[in-house]
Amino acid sequence: MLNLKSYAELIEVELTNIQLPNSPIALYDPIAYFLKIGGKRIRPILTLLAAELFSIEKSEVIPQALAIEIFHNFTLIHDDIMDLAPLRRNQQTIHEKWDSNVAILTGDALMIIAYQHLGRIELQFLPEAFESFNKTALEVCEGQQMDMDFETRNDVTIHEYIEMIRLKTSVLLGAALNLGAIVAKASTKEKESLRIFGENIGIAFQIQDDILDLYSDPTKFGKQVGGDVIANKKTLLHLTAVTKANREQLKIISQLQSENDISLKISRTKELFDHLEIKQECIYRMEAHYKLAIDALNSINVSEKHKTPLLELAQFLITRDL
Amino acid sequence: MLNLKSYAELIEVELTNIQLPNSPIALYDPIAYFLKIGGKRIRPILTLLAAELFSIEKSEVIPQALAIEIFHNFTLIHDDIMDLAPLRRNQQTIHEKWDSNVAILTGDALMIIAYQHLGRIELQFLPEAFESFNKTALEVCEGQQMDMDFETRNDVTIHEYIEMIRLKTSVLLGAALNLGAIVAKASTKEKESLRIFGENIGIAFQIQDDILDLYSDPTKFGKQVGGDVIANKKTLLHLTAVTKANREQLKIISQLQSENDISLKISRTKELFDHLEIKQECIYRMEAHYKLAIDALNSINVSEKHKTPLLELAQFLITRDL
Repeated sequence: MLNLKSYAELIEVELTNIQLPNSPIALYDPIAYFLKIGGKRIRPILTLLAAELFSIEKSEVIPQALAIEIFHNFTLIHDDIMDLAPLRRNQQTIHEKWDSNVAILTGDALMIIAYQHLGRIELQFLPEAFESFNKTALEVCEGQQMDMDFETRNDVTIHEYIEMIRLKTSVLLGAALNLGAIVAKASTKEKESLRIFGENIGIAFQIQDDILDLYSDPTKFGKQVGGDVIANKKTLLHLTAVTKANREQLKIISQLQSENDISLKISRTKELFDHLEIKQECIYRMEAHYKLAIDALNSINVSEKHKTPLLELAQFLITRDL
Repeated sequence: MLNLKSYAELIEVELTNIQLPNSPIALYDPIAYFLKIGGKRIRPILTLLAAELFSIEKSEVIPQALAIEIFHNFTLIHDDIMDLAPLRRNQQTIHEKWDSNVAILTGDALMIIAYQHLGRIELQFLPEAFESFNKTALEVCEGQQMDMDFETRNDVTIHEYIEMIRLKTSVLLGAALNLGAIVAKASTKEKESLRIFGENIGIAFQIQDDILDLYSDPTKFGKQVGGDVIANKKTLLHLTAVTKANREQLKIISQLQSENDISLKISRTKELFDHLEIKQECIYRMEAHYKLAIDALNSINVSEKHKTPLLELAQFLITRDL
């Protein structure tokens, strides 16, 4: 059984051991704060597991794992400013605890620190790792921009939505695996399979996230059930509903967007979604991406034993009780 | 005679030729806009001149020159958000023309694009160039943080101020030269001399900037003379005055900070500064850094003819008629 906790703890220790300069403290205090507020550390664990898939010690890819996690943290800090989010993992966000200017600069510095860790890779792997990292980093920015664009657009298609979540969150999972595979001297085909695995697990996870927002057990869900509905977010549930709804139902969806009674808004939306069988359709789509991921992993020619940890991680990320 | 204009035009052409992705346009339009609003392009020109100093064709360091200029543009975009600056080179800033979120993301993407250009360097030079670039990039963030810290501090020393401008603006000039020197396979000593040249020219330029703010000809100065005084900025003029002033004069300086009559505030400040001979002291300091720069350049063992362009650029940056 994959001991995720021990991997996450390894990453925690490595993050804590990063030697940050002492001054200016107004720059490095927020960085130290943010690196310590935790998270599942899925991305760096993927880098370690990709190396282990090809029998390479995880210690050989620690700097690359850190580069991915630090880059991810940079994106969280800047996204939180843009989303005006007060909390991240139940802790104050940087712009909330300090201010926006500090958060902008902290994010910038973290991105550079991510590159510093990436640069610790063996020279023979540097060009490929650097190019892959740059490409992915830019795609993450593109995904974030698409997400912001969608807020004011009323013609977002499901295809565009999937592409947005692929860029905003999933390509980084693919890049995390790719860095481990590069150091393990995996073949082009193996790297491509891992990328497909990572991206599709990411997409399946995000779809699950959309479903759980409305269909999770309030006693187990950590936040307000229906938060996306309240905020009129164009989730996959909403976009699927729009494609399946008839004219009358479209009118109801539109009217519900300006409904002020929150619990009525949620219950009426859910009622309509249930009628249109939206949840099931989203689950099908999630499962399709999950299958693409597993098939890609299975296509890699290493022993089943070596694939087990990545399979278990995929299963951990995608709960089976939707 | 150094034809600065032809170098700047070369950089303009190269910046214009950068192939940006087509979408999302909300991300790439602001990037294209900002890369076209001009500037003196001093930093990339330094990279070209450093290569030419060692008889390397400038065409061989174009990607590195672009990396430096694009990185510089990223810092401008984020600094403009933090400073709430409405204009940059007489054009609307990104956060003003679009909004802060767009400006944050545009800056992030530009930093990544800078790394993409840096990555086009020959493999043998990549580790050193990458490390130098990362170190400098982080120093620029540190300088920006110090600058922000100084706004609320009343005990800033001249030493700290010089260190702030060194980090915020001058190290990037040094790094620009260093990238050219790396490709030219310059010796460690030569690279160090060029770094000293670049950093001290940068410091001298910033000191000149502080002096010109109060002591330039209003008919020639592009902006409000005394703008720093109005904004109570802790420039070198102010910090020098604080160290030279007696108790009575310190009180006047403090009172003037809350003077609402702008022209009175400027004229009284100037009167006091003249009495304390602040301008002359700042000129001495500027000249000292200028001399450090020239001495460092002169210590490099290449023909005088090859040094002339860098000397002329230094002279161009530091006007002699203060």
